Amino acid sequence: MVARNCHIEKFHASYLFPEIGRRRDAFLKQRPNAQLISLGVGDTTQPLPTAASEAVIKFAQALATGDGYQGYGPEQGALALRQGIAERLYSCDIDPSEIFVSDGAKCDIGRLQHLFGPSATVALQDPAYPVYVDTSVLMGRTESYNVSTQGYGGLTYLPCTAENGFFPDLDAADKTDVIFFCSPNNPTGAVATREQLEKLVAFAKSNSSIIVFDAAYAPFIQDETLPRSIFEIEGAREVAIEVNSFSKLAGFTGVRLGWTVVPKELAFNDGSKVIDDWRRLSCTLFNGASNLAQAAGIGLLTNQGMQEVETLVNGYMENARILREAVTSCGLKVYGGKHAPYLWVAFPGRGSWNVFQQLMDEAELITTPGVGFGPAGEGFVRLSALGNRRDVETAAQRLVRVLKTPSFQPA
Amino acid sequence: MVARNCHIEKFHASYLFPEIGRRRDAFLKQRPNAQLISLGVGDTTQPLPTAASEAVIKFAQALATGDGYQGYGPEQGALALRQGIAERLYSCDIDPSEIFVSDGAKCDIGRLQHLFGPSATVALQDPAYPVYVDTSVLMGRTESYNVSTQGYGGLTYLPCTAENGFFPDLDAADKTDVIFFCSPNNPTGAVATREQLEKLVAFAKSNSSIIVFDAAYAPFIQDETLPRSIFEIEGAREVAIEVNSFSKLAGFTGVRLGWTVVPKELAFNDGSKVIDDWRRLSCTLFNGASNLAQAAGIGLLTNQGMQEVETLVNGYMENARILREAVTSCGLKVYGGKHAPYLWVAFPGRGSWNVFQQLMDEAELITTPGVGFGPAGEGFVRLSALGNRRDVETAAQRLVRVLKTPSFQPA
Repeated sequence: MVARNCHIEKFHASYLFPEIGRRRDAFLKQRPNAQLISLGVGDTTQPLPTAASEAVIKFAQALATGDGYQGYGPEQGALALRQGIAERLYSCDIDPSEIFVSDGAKCDIGRLQHLFGPSATVALQDPAYPVYVDTSVLMGRTESYNVSTQGYGGLTYLPCTAENGFFPDLDAADKTDVIFFCSPNNPTGAVATREQLEKLVAFAKSNSSIIVFDAAYAPFIQDETLPRSIFEIEGAREVAIEVNSFSKLAGFTGVRLGWTVVPKELAFNDGSKVIDDWRRLSCTLFNGASNLAQAAGIGLLTNQGMQEVETLVNGYMENARILREAVTSCGLKVYGGKHAPYLWVAFPGRGSWNVFQQLMDEAELITTPGVGFGPAGEGFVRLSALGNRRDVETAAQRLVRVLKTPSFQPA
Repeated sequence: MVARNCHIEKFHASYLFPEIGRRRDAFLKQRPNAQLISLGVGDTTQPLPTAASEAVIKFAQALATGDGYQGYGPEQGALALRQGIAERLYSCDIDPSEIFVSDGAKCDIGRLQHLFGPSATVALQDPAYPVYVDTSVLMGRTESYNVSTQGYGGLTYLPCTAENGFFPDLDAADKTDVIFFCSPNNPTGAVATREQLEKLVAFAKSNSSIIVFDAAYAPFIQDETLPRSIFEIEGAREVAIEVNSFSKLAGFTGVRLGWTVVPKELAFNDGSKVIDDWRRLSCTLFNGASNLAQAAGIGLLTNQGMQEVETLVNGYMENARILREAVTSCGLKVYGGKHAPYLWVAFPGRGSWNVFQQLMDEAELITTPGVGFGPAGEGFVRLSALGNRRDVETAAQRLVRVLKTPSFQPA
């Protein structure tokens, strides 16, 4: 009989969010009348911008006609969409030919792992979006999971803590080939400054690394002087790839649309261009994002759509403000939530899953345990501000009620 | 600097269809007024069934409302869609929990490669859909490309020829872990009989192999007694996975929707269930098919939608009949086109790319060179019947005109 994939065997736990779902279901079985509110998985809740839905409707009508029907589109995505992304979402020069439309950042991160050879080494922020770790494990870039360090051998974790302002000591990534870096960060909500990203780019250059920069939360940056793309940093085109997404930008989490930017300058050590291999990979592992989703994206990247996006983002950032205020009013330390829809709440000396369970039991709130994002997330819980206003307001009231009880208060 | 992925370096040529596109573009540059008709890439051309487009429209309207909005769906796909697939598209018992909705068979074949460990061995029909080969190369399952054999070392090619009725000698797959098998076949158009599939299942069982069965062309089977799924064969649930697609069934090539069936009985040699690893992989590498595409699928799997599918399939099969007649009237031997939308035309003693070029030059027809699907495809050209009727009729006339000229006639 066929052997199980030894890399899958290494997974020490199920993917974080299904695990949360299982615990939620167990809770609801015991307390079926609980009024659970989720501040957990970063799922969007507000209606799709009408500019996007109207574009889909028009496109779907056309598909049912002889003249409007389209079959396979270009694997790289419709040119109009790539042009719209370049023009509307980047202040720096990105050529549409460098943009590859995807069905979401998560899916592209998995495919991006194939860009690099089996012995490529990986560094990543700790805590981090679990997909960087899991796809690295799957590609055989790691050793087994180490229970005492709560991490995988062979993977370089770059702790991002309150002490270092959530910007890691890059020297720990010495000699790693690929550095995953996410700003604004999921889960900490921290945003890297221009100076920090300059440092990152300079490090990648001197260290001969490629940065995989995840900018999925860039639309939430409120300060115009903060960079929204790694490519706003000089020299980044020689060392970075950027993955990005419509999911949080415009509530496309279910619609599935994202993109990856691979600059023409980026090269491997044999001089061959990374963009050429990425194009080949895209044709081999992918067949283009749904043309319905692409139509939605094209509709969104209009004046009307961009105005709707602004309203959407402002609404979520107001949620973040409400949640921040609730938590800080209880004397707890909270990070993030200013340029990102995530708040990172510190519970010093406590286990994340323990806090998760207590918040579910006592406040009927679903959160995300920080340790699910990596060992440095222990003692934190992530709150998502992507909910409905009414839910967020109720959640804030419940937080104020329970966080003031002694068990949640810092010693 | 970072090294190029050694597995990508092995690719001996670009993916077949982009290569055809490049040759077409070069041709059009020289002859910009050419009236090219494509019988090449198997792209659908007929309007999307209105049952599907109407369902998308309704769903997109709902997404733009507070009550109708949905974010992330289940990674495995909407339950209503999985139930519809089980009920409408399978005559054998498939539980909806065994169905995993995807953004297409191609994408799932790439992900399926991750189910198997780095040292898993692969056998496949020759000729075959290039994605089985390319994703195997990418996973490091092969050695370099061998110019003299026109294949990759370490990969077991199972020649499917006119001589063996396009059903391979399975003994050549001795000790291989994974056997890719496609019926109705792309590119040969051959359909495996019940007896042949029983032989395949028995072989997999005795050889301890897992079959990855590609049934994307099952809707084109005209004979009710021929199996449309590997799971119609007794014992298949212990040895097979099935990948499938809405692409050819209903013109979803651009909409992107497919599914994979992993039966609960299928196990690895340590007794662990394949379906559990597949679920974990689906959560790691994928975030669900676009909910717009899923809405289209749900709309399609209604009485109205299934009637539209029947009309669609009948139209394409009439195209196949027209093309078959044209080719056979010239005295050439043609296979397929009876239970599949592909015709496999023999040009004994001639090179496939050579025939491809001559058909483009002399008949302004784009075809697909058989050798692009594997070494045993040399001397053949694939014709797709998925075009518009008017184009197909014109193409048939052109074929009759040029195939009668001496250079195309068998010696």
